Amino acid sequence: MAKSLINSINGKFKGKDILSLDQFAPLDLKMLFSLTKKMKNIAFNAKPSRILDGNIVTLIFYEPSSRTFGSFSAAVKQLGGQTVEIQNPQSFSSVAKGETLSDTIRVFEAYCDAIVIRHFEVGSAKKASDYASSVPVINAGDGTGEHPTQALLDLYTIHEKFNRLDNLLGVVGGDILNGRTIHSLIKGLCKFKKNTLFLLSPKTLRLTRADFLYFQDKGIKLIEIQSEKEIPKNADFWYWTRVQKERFHDLKEYEKVKNRFIVTKKLLKDYGNKKMILMHPLPRVGEIDIDIDRDPRAVYLGPQTRNGMYIRMALLALILGKV
Amino acid sequence: MAKSLINSINGKFKGKDILSLDQFAPLDLKMLFSLTKKMKNIAFNAKPSRILDGNIVTLIFYEPSSRTFGSFSAAVKQLGGQTVEIQNPQSFSSVAKGETLSDTIRVFEAYCDAIVIRHFEVGSAKKASDYASSVPVINAGDGTGEHPTQALLDLYTIHEKFNRLDNLLGVVGGDILNGRTIHSLIKGLCKFKKNTLFLLSPKTLRLTRADFLYFQDKGIKLIEIQSEKEIPKNADFWYWTRVQKERFHDLKEYEKVKNRFIVTKKLLKDYGNKKMILMHPLPRVGEIDIDIDRDPRAVYLGPQTRNGMYIRMALLALILGKV
Amino acid sequence: MAKSLINSINGKFKGKDILSLDQFAPLDLKMLFSLTKKMKNIAFNAKPSRILDGNIVTLIFYEPSSRTFGSFSAAVKQLGGQTVEIQNPQSFSSVAKGETLSDTIRVFEAYCDAIVIRHFEVGSAKKASDYASSVPVINAGDGTGEHPTQALLDLYTIHEKFNRLDNLLGVVGGDILNGRTIHSLIKGLCKFKKNTLFLLSPKTLRLTRADFLYFQDKGIKLIEIQSEKEIPKNADFWYWTRVQKERFHDLKEYEKVKNRFIVTKKLLKDYGNKKMILMHPLPRVGEIDIDIDRDPRAVYLGPQTRNGMYIRMALLALILGKV
Repeated sequence: MAKSLINSINGKFKGKDILSLDQFAPLDLKMLFSLTKKMKNIAFNAKPSRILDGNIVTLIFYEPSSRTFGSFSAAVKQLGGQTVEIQNPQSFSSVAKGETLSDTIRVFEAYCDAIVIRHFEVGSAKKASDYASSVPVINAGDGTGEHPTQALLDLYTIHEKFNRLDNLLGVVGGDILNGRTIHSLIKGLCKFKKNTLFLLSPKTLRLTRADFLYFQDKGIKLIEIQSEKEIPKNADFWYWTRVQKERFHDLKEYEKVKNRFIVTKKLLKDYGNKKMILMHPLPRVGEIDIDIDRDPRAVYLGPQTRNGMYIRMALLALILGKV
Repeated sequence: MAKSLINSINGKFKGKDILSLDQFAPLDLKMLFSLTKKMKNIAFNAKPSRILDGNIVTLIFYEPSSRTFGSFSAAVKQLGGQTVEIQNPQSFSSVAKGETLSDTIRVFEAYCDAIVIRHFEVGSAKKASDYASSVPVINAGDGTGEHPTQALLDLYTIHEKFNRLDNLLGVVGGDILNGRTIHSLIKGLCKFKKNTLFLLSPKTLRLTRADFLYFQDKGIKLIEIQSEKEIPKNADFWYWTRVQKERFHDLKEYEKVKNRFIVTKKLLKDYGNKKMILMHPLPRVGEIDIDIDRDPRAVYLGPQTRNGMYIRMALLALILGKV
Repeated sequence: MAKSLINSINGKFKGKDILSLDQFAPLDLKMLFSLTKKMKNIAFNAKPSRILDGNIVTLIFYEPSSRTFGSFSAAVKQLGGQTVEIQNPQSFSSVAKGETLSDTIRVFEAYCDAIVIRHFEVGSAKKASDYASSVPVINAGDGTGEHPTQALLDLYTIHEKFNRLDNLLGVVGGDILNGRTIHSLIKGLCKFKKNTLFLLSPKTLRLTRADFLYFQDKGIKLIEIQSEKEIPKNADFWYWTRVQKERFHDLKEYEKVKNRFIVTKKLLKDYGNKKMILMHPLPRVGEIDIDIDRDPRAVYLGPQTRNGMYIRMALLALILGKV
């Protein structure tokens, strides 16, 4: 049964680009997560995987991102594939000489079976996928646009714990206005029923009114709160994020809000519960106390990170038609 | 027959450095191209190649070049080999501390089976090959000197189409004065009989008189033209190039000539023919209209690029004695 | 017998971090060197090794070092393993955004089986090993701290030649005050009996009094000399080093001492002998004349460099439990 379902998702994604979370219907997610679980068993298995044996995946990162880069590089190699790694091509001769993204992508597709692109411009991954006529493209983050593999790993991490993506109660903390990963998480949960999120942030970092209404309209229940005291004690997960210094023109403003909501042992004791998990997309710069790191509920380092690799392994195997 | 001929070229190139197009006699090219064709079948074959299994090739690039770098990296991995990749060693500690090219090369030859070097100084690849006593060296471009694998892929692309390298009629457009790839192409065609090239460029970007006479003397027929109207309608190939902005001290001068000769749909319709191919060494910055890209005669993106990988696969297999 | 001894060292080092030469007792060194010798046979063997098949090793280099980086990269691949390579993560987004070393290490340990770290701060490798809870860490140099694989390859090179690490007579030349590799070599020889070192350096670059007494106390005999004429003619090895320009505030002072002691053909003829070896940790900037390079006693390029790869292969196989 599981096998045939995976075959059906495979049929759907073989040769396809992975550009946005929007491509994944609830059933797709279910199947992807089932495959991701298999990948978890394959990685670090004593017997090396040969699933991508003979496949070359180009990682072309216009914007460096050590974690996403390392995760994709490891994902390819965990499956026995090889990578061609190009970092900062804009400082390389061809791009510096005025080569367009189109030409660069069409050059690199000639060498490989799939392209993973990270770029600082919104929409660039979509453009790259339009240019690449013979190989699938994965969006590894296009500026303030999308970063679908991050969104998928967050949803997978919740699903892995609770075995469902509906009927969830979550608390989201930090920079809710700008946080791309938060927006994606909300979007993802909107695909399922009866989810509720408490949003805890400084007033200046709340969702825009338009976004708030848009998401509500999609069926999720959003509740903005202003103090830790309003955190519901029965949440399934807390999803904390960094206040993004680079978004502030006025650094005084940043200093005022950056440490407003910190997850401490005490906060977790007072408002958390035993079954919840504590997530963070990383990097973290102080908004979760490090003395919580070894708490088994803290999944941000370790499980959540590893899930990113497993999700990427699953996606690569899917688009390359190897499952 | 083919096999024994390849064995003979193998005998000639095993353990040898690839520094210059001059190393290749017409018969060598014939055999190399026959091997390159085999490589084309090996690449992207469902069954992974193990030809370079256990081989490590060091790519040491003093001057970044995303395309050449990616092409060599992919070539090694298409054959099941591994790379050690060193980019910008001059910003690395040892070289920054004053280490000579000689010592750097002798360090890296200790770790691998072959070295591919890209360097900004003319003659550096030859020097590197002198220093490396135990492994072969491939020149991946030494400044304004040579870039033999580029020259070979251009010749291969023509040969693949017409199955010959003599009796050809070509049109070369762009910066004929400075274009290294054009000079190499002319050199290569000089090895064969009855070739004619029409050279279309702004007056200031023509061959020097000395170069013109030198090449003519080698047996090729060169005809300088000044207008698109003089393009012969029965050419076998057009080879277009970028006007190299970085060569101009006076940017006004550059602006005057950069867009002088552009390949448009109209030009191709008026002066082209059905059997010809349109080549470009890349990067391109406007001298070929992008609406020609999907024309089957336009081989610069796709076939010509892929041929670069196949040629490099063939050369690596040859010098490592694996064919 | 040899096998069981290696098994015993394996039992000791499996899953362990390699942070310092101090971890190696004389018997450990003996066994490590026996394993290193096997690695020498494995490298460049016609039959590719699969010892690390399925293993991924992350190389995270905060401070670029082409030689150490290349050597580790090649070591992993010589054994059939794969690398995830992260260079200059401090210029990457996460670290630039304020991520701690702890979080970075815990992210990368999620993707791999072992981490090799090079960092500019003393103690950083130890810290990294504390943070990494699931994979072993190898110190590839932590600023002016330790660089154990360099120390081990130096000792191995001597042992390979003389089949012992006691009863040796050596001459050490260059920057004895600052040279990390010299300090490590002295430390290593202190583990064995009846070793004597003549120390030849400008007065300003001698050992501190404290270091001198400390080492003497450990059982090695140190003799400071001021002129080439005092070099003993029966030395087993000369270990020469670069005067480290970057340590001098006053460049005039550097100019005064940098070329004070140069190994020339004449010096080697007058004070050397047939059985000795001439070592250098590299990079070299003139303190050994290049016309000595092809002398069979000059092991610094070639054998000593290759030994670094073999030592790293052996250590990787040990900590990953593959021998």
